[in-house]
Amino acid sequence: MPSLPSPISDPVAILRDLITAPSVTPDSGEAIARLARILEAAGFDCETVTFSEPGTPDVINLYARIGQGAPHLTFGGHVDVVPPGDAAKWRHDPFSATIEDGRLYGRGAVDMKGGIAAFVAAAIDHLAARRPGSGTLSFLITGDEEGPSINGTVKLLRWAHDRGERFDAAIVGEPTNPQAVGDAIKVGRRGSLSGTVTVTGRQGHVAYPHLADNPIPGLVRLMGALMAEPLDAGNERFQPSNLEFVSVDVGNPAWNVIPGVARARFNIRFNDRWSRSTLEAWLRARLAAAGDGLDWTLTLQTPSSDSFLTVDTRLVDGLGTAIETVTGHRPELSTGGGTSDARHIKDYCPVVEFGLVGQTMHQLDEHVPVADLFTLTAIYRVFLDGFFDGADRTA
Amino acid sequence: MPSLPSPISDPVAILRDLITAPSVTPDSGEAIARLARILEAAGFDCETVTFSEPGTPDVINLYARIGQGAPHLTFGGHVDVVPPGDAAKWRHDPFSATIEDGRLYGRGAVDMKGGIAAFVAAAIDHLAARRPGSGTLSFLITGDEEGPSINGTVKLLRWAHDRGERFDAAIVGEPTNPQAVGDAIKVGRRGSLSGTVTVTGRQGHVAYPHLADNPIPGLVRLMGALMAEPLDAGNERFQPSNLEFVSVDVGNPAWNVIPGVARARFNIRFNDRWSRSTLEAWLRARLAAAGDGLDWTLTLQTPSSDSFLTVDTRLVDGLGTAIETVTGHRPELSTGGGTSDARHIKDYCPVVEFGLVGQTMHQLDEHVPVADLFTLTAIYRVFLDGFFDGADRTA
Repeated sequence: MPSLPSPISDPVAILRDLITAPSVTPDSGEAIARLARILEAAGFDCETVTFSEPGTPDVINLYARIGQGAPHLTFGGHVDVVPPGDAAKWRHDPFSATIEDGRLYGRGAVDMKGGIAAFVAAAIDHLAARRPGSGTLSFLITGDEEGPSINGTVKLLRWAHDRGERFDAAIVGEPTNPQAVGDAIKVGRRGSLSGTVTVTGRQGHVAYPHLADNPIPGLVRLMGALMAEPLDAGNERFQPSNLEFVSVDVGNPAWNVIPGVARARFNIRFNDRWSRSTLEAWLRARLAAAGDGLDWTLTLQTPSSDSFLTVDTRLVDGLGTAIETVTGHRPELSTGGGTSDARHIKDYCPVVEFGLVGQTMHQLDEHVPVADLFTLTAIYRVFLDGFFDGADRTA
Repeated sequence: MPSLPSPISDPVAILRDLITAPSVTPDSGEAIARLARILEAAGFDCETVTFSEPGTPDVINLYARIGQGAPHLTFGGHVDVVPPGDAAKWRHDPFSATIEDGRLYGRGAVDMKGGIAAFVAAAIDHLAARRPGSGTLSFLITGDEEGPSINGTVKLLRWAHDRGERFDAAIVGEPTNPQAVGDAIKVGRRGSLSGTVTVTGRQGHVAYPHLADNPIPGLVRLMGALMAEPLDAGNERFQPSNLEFVSVDVGNPAWNVIPGVARARFNIRFNDRWSRSTLEAWLRARLAAAGDGLDWTLTLQTPSSDSFLTVDTRLVDGLGTAIETVTGHRPELSTGGGTSDARHIKDYCPVVEFGLVGQTMHQLDEHVPVADLFTLTAIYRVFLDGFFDGADRTA
């Protein structure tokens, strides 16, 4: 194993600075400001951009860049956090960033102020050691990832693109590891499609069912048809596609009334065998086959997201090599789990996700082992050195 | 066909008096007062009784009686009415009791101020013609049949019983006829049992179904098991028993969350093959057979009502003969449809239901053909004469 560069910057100090600026989604102004100060001190050009939309809160975002020319690597992340829940139930104040027994406690410790702090520390050290003209490094930071995600990464990407920014690769610092830092890189995501099946009958009195038409038996039949067999068995790159009914709602408060309408709502997480249109065809065929005599409709939510798989060698192999260098193990290349802002970044450049261990995210007592922060910082540093060094060699 | 006694009292005048006292459930004070004045003028002893219960509105009820000794026939009815809906959409003001083209319009015209008016007119004429000592005739009138039915007939029956009143037979004046006065007597009712099936799973993120346990597929399976085949095929006295799911409710507003609990609510209308306990056993057996591996519960609502069938010859045959005398046709003896206060009266004496044609009940432009009022008055009159005359002969 090659010797690792010694860390100069301290990810723990950066993380404590970020955690102690409470930024429950979407109120991220102070956390954005602190991050901008750190990056400006390291030589980055920082610009905060506020996006608005009627009916949604304004959100402050940050774009920071340094260097010029290709390759351009961008780091995607968010400083907003989910609410702490009952703060009194935490071992330590969720915004105190208290360290105990080698663990740093705080909301956002792993999701994902910790990932940001590690990348910032790695970037500062990399920049201090790199040769000029190696390329461009930037940060795309939003305050609206845990919320409605309307005034965040989607708009920031378009804003940067409109300014002429062109990214060659991106890393998103979401917690991707099930057990230990280095377990897994997310190299893609399943797509997500939501929809509603509605059956319309005829309301009436429960004592006179022949004068009414209860939509519930028909809805149960249609739901059964959609659950009868799995969409697929998965493949070497992706888990099986999966349909889950998330709610069924009739909303009839009476006991003696047959309702007129019944609805079931579902979400499908789907792999690269499917698209929105092939799924819609599959759904309609199943419903039609089972829906004889029923007045049913299918409505699909917009937007949906398609699956994606990143195969960029420089990014995926480069990060895998950095992980192996630091931990001694190659990471799993995963496409499981939920969506993140990577699904938006993938429309602009190859993107992977890699960060801390996700076990305590969104929970009481969210915390990160301090050792994990240094491990992740080292991995990011080795990757950055290799990415820009390799780019320089091939330029 | 024997000649019919000539009507003296006018059911139309009585009905207009009752309709023009708006008595949207449970505000029936003025309608009760008007009815009491009419009955007092005819010689009845009238007592108004107000029942109260925390959380429910006070309700004024009326008990009126005349005569003494057996047999004691009581007439059960309600002066409260359902709301008129949008009064502006009525052909005539719903409380104006306007007559047009031989039809009397107004809320309660058929359900059931019309039935009360016809019975009052018939009773007054019967009393004017009867010999003294023929027996007892009474009215059990509530203002809480269309509402929660808490401070109405159930309490009035107990109140009368506590005073020593003993009924030998009862007629409830609900609209029982599908097409024409005389079509059908209700001689019983199916029972009614409501309940909830709940399946508990484990909430989680829709992208990680293996970490959650969606209760919806299990609930759909259990619902399918309860709907798989009918409870029975009915018999010569009763329609088939029938289970209807009236609502399914999960109440999960999110698209990306697998819910933790799912519930389905049902109502069963059941014939004399079943009781609450045999139905509960049937339900639990079906759920257990289909519920392997599921965390399900069944809860049944209280109260439920059992089915009943009135076989009292004097009542059923007497009314059938009166109908045939007036209309020329024997009525159908029905046990179909929903419940009424007859289900409470049957605990005290044999009871049948017979009144007007129900087609416009609870609708806009509820109305009764004036001719129907006179037909019903004549039927009640012939029945009353026969009931008390026959009683006198066998005494």
